[in-house]
Amino acid sequence: MLMSGKRVAIVMGSDSDWGVMSACAEQLKAFGVEAHVEVMSAHRSPARVHEFSSSAEKDGFEVIIAAAGMSAALAGTIAAQTVLPVIGVPLEGGMPGGLDALLSTVQMPPGIPVAAMAVGGAGAKNAALLAIQMLAVKDAGLREAFRKFKADQAAKVRERNAALQAKR
Amino acid sequence: MLMSGKRVAIVMGSDSDWGVMSACAEQLKAFGVEAHVEVMSAHRSPARVHEFSSSAEKDGFEVIIAAAGMSAALAGTIAAQTVLPVIGVPLEGGMPGGLDALLSTVQMPPGIPVAAMAVGGAGAKNAALLAIQMLAVKDAGLREAFRKFKADQAAKVRERNAALQAKR
Amino acid sequence: MLMSGKRVAIVMGSDSDWGVMSACAEQLKAFGVEAHVEVMSAHRSPARVHEFSSSAEKDGFEVIIAAAGMSAALAGTIAAQTVLPVIGVPLEGGMPGGLDALLSTVQMPPGIPVAAMAVGGAGAKNAALLAIQMLAVKDAGLREAFRKFKADQAAKVRERNAALQAKR
Amino acid sequence: MLMSGKRVAIVMGSDSDWGVMSACAEQLKAFGVEAHVEVMSAHRSPARVHEFSSSAEKDGFEVIIAAAGMSAALAGTIAAQTVLPVIGVPLEGGMPGGLDALLSTVQMPPGIPVAAMAVGGAGAKNAALLAIQMLAVKDAGLREAFRKFKADQAAKVRERNAALQAKR
Amino acid sequence: MLMSGKRVAIVMGSDSDWGVMSACAEQLKAFGVEAHVEVMSAHRSPARVHEFSSSAEKDGFEVIIAAAGMSAALAGTIAAQTVLPVIGVPLEGGMPGGLDALLSTVQMPPGIPVAAMAVGGAGAKNAALLAIQMLAVKDAGLREAFRKFKADQAAKVRERNAALQAKR
Amino acid sequence: MLMSGKRVAIVMGSDSDWGVMSACAEQLKAFGVEAHVEVMSAHRSPARVHEFSSSAEKDGFEVIIAAAGMSAALAGTIAAQTVLPVIGVPLEGGMPGGLDALLSTVQMPPGIPVAAMAVGGAGAKNAALLAIQMLAVKDAGLREAFRKFKADQAAKVRERNAALQAKR
Amino acid sequence: MLMSGKRVAIVMGSDSDWGVMSACAEQLKAFGVEAHVEVMSAHRSPARVHEFSSSAEKDGFEVIIAAAGMSAALAGTIAAQTVLPVIGVPLEGGMPGGLDALLSTVQMPPGIPVAAMAVGGAGAKNAALLAIQMLAVKDAGLREAFRKFKADQAAKVRERNAALQAKR
Amino acid sequence: MLMSGKRVAIVMGSDSDWGVMSACAEQLKAFGVEAHVEVMSAHRSPARVHEFSSSAEKDGFEVIIAAAGMSAALAGTIAAQTVLPVIGVPLEGGMPGGLDALLSTVQMPPGIPVAAMAVGGAGAKNAALLAIQMLAVKDAGLREAFRKFKADQAAKVRERNAALQAKR
Repeated sequence: MLMSGKRVAIVMGSDSDWGVMSACAEQLKAFGVEAHVEVMSAHRSPARVHEFSSSAEKDGFEVIIAAAGMSAALAGTIAAQTVLPVIGVPLEGGMPGGLDALLSTVQMPPGIPVAAMAVGGAGAKNAALLAIQMLAVKDAGLREAFRKFKADQAAKVRERNAALQAKR
Repeated sequence: MLMSGKRVAIVMGSDSDWGVMSACAEQLKAFGVEAHVEVMSAHRSPARVHEFSSSAEKDGFEVIIAAAGMSAALAGTIAAQTVLPVIGVPLEGGMPGGLDALLSTVQMPPGIPVAAMAVGGAGAKNAALLAIQMLAVKDAGLREAFRKFKADQAAKVRERNAALQAKR
Repeated sequence: MLMSGKRVAIVMGSDSDWGVMSACAEQLKAFGVEAHVEVMSAHRSPARVHEFSSSAEKDGFEVIIAAAGMSAALAGTIAAQTVLPVIGVPLEGGMPGGLDALLSTVQMPPGIPVAAMAVGGAGAKNAALLAIQMLAVKDAGLREAFRKFKADQAAKVRERNAALQAKR
Repeated sequence: MLMSGKRVAIVMGSDSDWGVMSACAEQLKAFGVEAHVEVMSAHRSPARVHEFSSSAEKDGFEVIIAAAGMSAALAGTIAAQTVLPVIGVPLEGGMPGGLDALLSTVQMPPGIPVAAMAVGGAGAKNAALLAIQMLAVKDAGLREAFRKFKADQAAKVRERNAALQAKR
Repeated sequence: MLMSGKRVAIVMGSDSDWGVMSACAEQLKAFGVEAHVEVMSAHRSPARVHEFSSSAEKDGFEVIIAAAGMSAALAGTIAAQTVLPVIGVPLEGGMPGGLDALLSTVQMPPGIPVAAMAVGGAGAKNAALLAIQMLAVKDAGLREAFRKFKADQAAKVRERNAALQAKR
Repeated sequence: MLMSGKRVAIVMGSDSDWGVMSACAEQLKAFGVEAHVEVMSAHRSPARVHEFSSSAEKDGFEVIIAAAGMSAALAGTIAAQTVLPVIGVPLEGGMPGGLDALLSTVQMPPGIPVAAMAVGGAGAKNAALLAIQMLAVKDAGLREAFRKFKADQAAKVRERNAALQAKR
Repeated sequence: MLMSGKRVAIVMGSDSDWGVMSACAEQLKAFGVEAHVEVMSAHRSPARVHEFSSSAEKDGFEVIIAAAGMSAALAGTIAAQTVLPVIGVPLEGGMPGGLDALLSTVQMPPGIPVAAMAVGGAGAKNAALLAIQMLAVKDAGLREAFRKFKADQAAKVRERNAALQAKR
Repeated sequence: MLMSGKRVAIVMGSDSDWGVMSACAEQLKAFGVEAHVEVMSAHRSPARVHEFSSSAEKDGFEVIIAAAGMSAALAGTIAAQTVLPVIGVPLEGGMPGGLDALLSTVQMPPGIPVAAMAVGGAGAKNAALLAIQMLAVKDAGLREAFRKFKADQAAKVRERNAALQAKR
């Protein structure tokens, strides 16, 4: 499979996860980073997960973002089969608030790290930002873009405060 | 790998799990069923898990018991790669009471069943008993043995009650 | 009661559970397995549960699927009174996410296994699949059907991925 | 079985529960109420539980106290088969703090009440006190004894406070 | 305050609880037992709770049912000030599923029992049934009525099963 | 009861709580504030709690610290009966980590605030510090003492860091 | 920044929190206390939080109320940088019921107290009331107003009870 | 402060955390990466945390690992003030299993990512490994070292399995 030079992959257990995870792709795109997006399931299509994980490095990926719900094994399964850093986004779907997916994602045994994000939308966006921070380890341009993102974000808080003052 | 005609496999994520899981092997042995026992990790030795899962059926196994703690992906990972029934035993090791392993084991997404047991020792013993019940679907001798096990168990409750009455 | 040769029974604590559990019956039917379906309650109609459990084996059942919510005693109560394997499906109804039913179903004491599934719809479907896997221990046709089910399922993930790519 | 005029029964799922439940019997005895004590298990000796529950009323019992851990079905199973009030004491044994037993005991479906107590020792003692309160509905002597118990208890708090003041 | 011979009191922390607790009063009425119903709050109107609790016995009450949400102190506060048995119904209102109210209601310290029910509607109905069981300790008519209630309840399960069979 | 000019009261449900709560008294004393310490129980000695709460203001108290475990009603019960600010310290004793006491303390209904602290020792110390902050609203000397406490605390972190560097 | 003599500040992590926190400002206003309201985020605008916290005392504030959801660091971050008492209101936004925000707010380490309120609307109102109680330490007029508030609140419970009686 | 060319910083809220976090430093050292280690507290020494965070980039750090317990604000507070990637290790200290620290660490609001690890020792080790993976984005030598680490790890599982077989 040709990856066309994409450096970040977003994989998810079900196509229905795209409702949440599209925000991740959009956040990456805001930094000029196009992501490879693919539906694959640790439980339903393990052969594809194996194929993807074991070739991700030579396919040119540098960071992998994996999102899943319930017994969310996707991020850990990929992390087991690649040397690339893996970011896990737990999604709601079983237990309320996605507690099952959160614990499945974050409670990795020693030896196989997964960078766990918050459950759902907040995690989807933050996964993109962490991927940018990882790429920025060697990409000064992305680092400056991230610095600007943080400044803009702080400015937005001030603007929203001003708008609230005006409204009250 | 030759399996020497064993019908049940007990696999676990770490050799330290043997302290709990030996009770599972002993319970099987009490029914005359020798188990193949092996340490393999969904996260640390995924290639072995893949090899084991995909050949388990033709190696002659009929039931697989998988025990793991924390983000307990072992049972689900095996279930994803075999048509055999998989029994999952969550083990304590991360969250108190093994809540992380329990949710990781039981909250399987639709399409890939894992028969989840109680956390720890109770689950280790019950996994053996459920395996016996599964084998008994075609083995009338095992079914009679299981019937006797249940009767003995009820008798033991009566005996312990008698002992308590004597002691009070 | 004549069971007309049915090999799987689906019992549930309330008729309102049928909204979830019909998916279990349908999944069985997709494998050509008609299930006996019955409403019975461990708490409200214990005599019927006793009658059912103690005659299930001679009525020709091979696997029992029991679904209940809140203090979900149904699966365990049946397991206590039969040698057949019992699959428990916890249902939401009390605590959010069905945590009460999940713990009541899965935390069986040593000696009486219940094969616990995920809470709700995922568990309903997986209970059927596990029952098929159990029957397949002696039924090569069902095993082949299950193998095909798994392959179809993996294919569906690929199709949904393709559909997502087309849509983005 | 002759019950010798005992009005309260304390039943428990395992003889190991006596370490906690003896406090229940002692508290009853402090009110002059001898209890029938018996080990029986909803899961391991269901026939005895059925026999006990269905004859408890005519055996002269007026209140039943049932203690169990993990998937604590004992109190509910008895309540299903008797018209007598049933007090449930959840015991630790599976999940930390006995959360599994607590939810199994208290989350009874509509139609079958169980009077749930706190987990463990506090619940064991309070079960006795609630049984005394129930019997006191028709026994003025017990009511006066309970009134005195409450006054003594308040006095003990004052004494312990005095002792603490002396010690500081 | 004249209580007009009522034997059961239903008290609740807020008038908005009546949506749930009216089912409790109706269930009592189905047994011919009229309840005194009153809104009082352990936290907002403690003087009234004190007045009510300390006079409940001489006002002729025999059982008190107390329902509250969040930090549900009402049942325990009343139990602290009366010798009558107190049934506690935890209500949802803070934590999802009413976990806060459940723990506040059931985790009573040794010495002051509260008979805890399930959270919400199931608990509201069961509180009435437990009150009937308590009154039946001295009221043979109520006991017979309760026996009939149980039989009717089992019959209803059979009817609903029949209806489901017809519908499928 | 003469309070001898003490401005802060530390009350606790049991004398066994002193092991944790003595740290609260010591922290207050470090600011030169002697506390009235008393064992009283919302459930076992409600009359004393009522007497204390309703006279606390005219007895000269300005802040009340209340510590209790399990269904921790003490802080809320006092807050219901006084206009003084009440600080609640949940203690372990029932559910692991004191989750029951934490929820009972913090989930106060609207209208009756309790300032909830962390469970156990951290909460015991912080209750003293919050009481100092409250008194400092009108006591410039205490405010300066608190400012110094914070500076010392930061300095201690630096010292401990230095000690760790030396040790490594 | 000029604070115009305001004594209480309400800060919150997002302008969307105003839907809940406006009740806090209104409750303060009912006591004649105008609050400074500002959106600032411990995570997104840490410089503003630092500036606000370190100048709050000299800007004339006497109490700070901080509300945030998810990993609710706002109250603790402010408490770390001021000698003023800080009241924390956890808001729902991540885990159901705001459990994440509750634990982040209440589980402060020893040395830095935060007065934690209930999650959401109840906490918003109670934060205002606790602030009033703190200010009342030196303001006899506010104390009388608070006394009247409590009396009115008890009267409202009686009125609502009367209304319920009329409606039934 | 001179950082002597160190690329990874390990900071922790208390010197007592070193018992757990030394494993993190050792794991880094096994890859030839010396870490700067420092005790600093988001709550007790916020000025130092501010100073460290805002100069970390120009001091030459590329990854920051932050460990804390209870209301674990350290990782998020640092992430708020730097563009570098921050890895958070929740530590036990308050709620059992460190649930409070876990939720405080992982449930970061959108905009400020923290890469959350498992609670305690597993997280300490994995934080080092994730830091290595991040540095390996631009350091081919570290990537090869990590590849070897993974292979060694899988080999160790095989060895432990062999040892277990020998022992049984």
